[in-house]
Amino acid sequence: MSSEIPTVLVGGKPPTAYLIAVAYQFNSGSDKVRLRARGRAISTAVTVAEMSKRIVPNVKVEKIEIGTEMLGDPPRPVSTMEILLVKEE
Amino acid sequence: MSSEIPTVLVGGKPPTAYLIAVAYQFNSGSDKVRLRARGRAISTAVTVAEMSKRIVPNVKVEKIEIGTEMLGDPPRPVSTMEILLVKEE
Repeated sequence: MSSEIPTVLVGGKPPTAYLIAVAYQFNSGSDKVRLRARGRAISTAVTVAEMSKRIVPNVKVEKIEIGTEMLGDPPRPVSTMEILLVKEE
Repeated sequence: MSSEIPTVLVGGKPPTAYLIAVAYQFNSGSDKVRLRARGRAISTAVTVAEMSKRIVPNVKVEKIEIGTEMLGDPPRPVSTMEILLVKEE
């Protein structure tokens, strides 16, 4: 089930770029959308979640998880975040 | 009760500066420490939380909340985050 939730990867673009992707998924019938971000993009993901709450009807934050991934060569720890958005009927 | 939880305000310094503050609070007997951050510092707060889990014994993330504050003149929305760390006995 979890793998069927559409995921929006938040990177270095402005928050509105990802907001459009989130709104598209909800308008296409998804009742959940996952935001994923690493490093500096984590702040952007939070802004996307906050904008989604204001702009997409009945959307709220269901769960926020943080973690660490090893990236690069040599590998270095990078912080990660997942925000699960849910649309309540 | 909630107001008695020591709060570490995460800003523009390196994560280790705030990690030291978190470790100090736990070592001083607190069983909870709150990390607060706004805007770009949100990513740093996540890194501080992740480092705290690895470095301070028995510390885990209990709750993560995000929000929006109006800041500046003219006021603009700024994303905020609170991470509640708890030390389990």
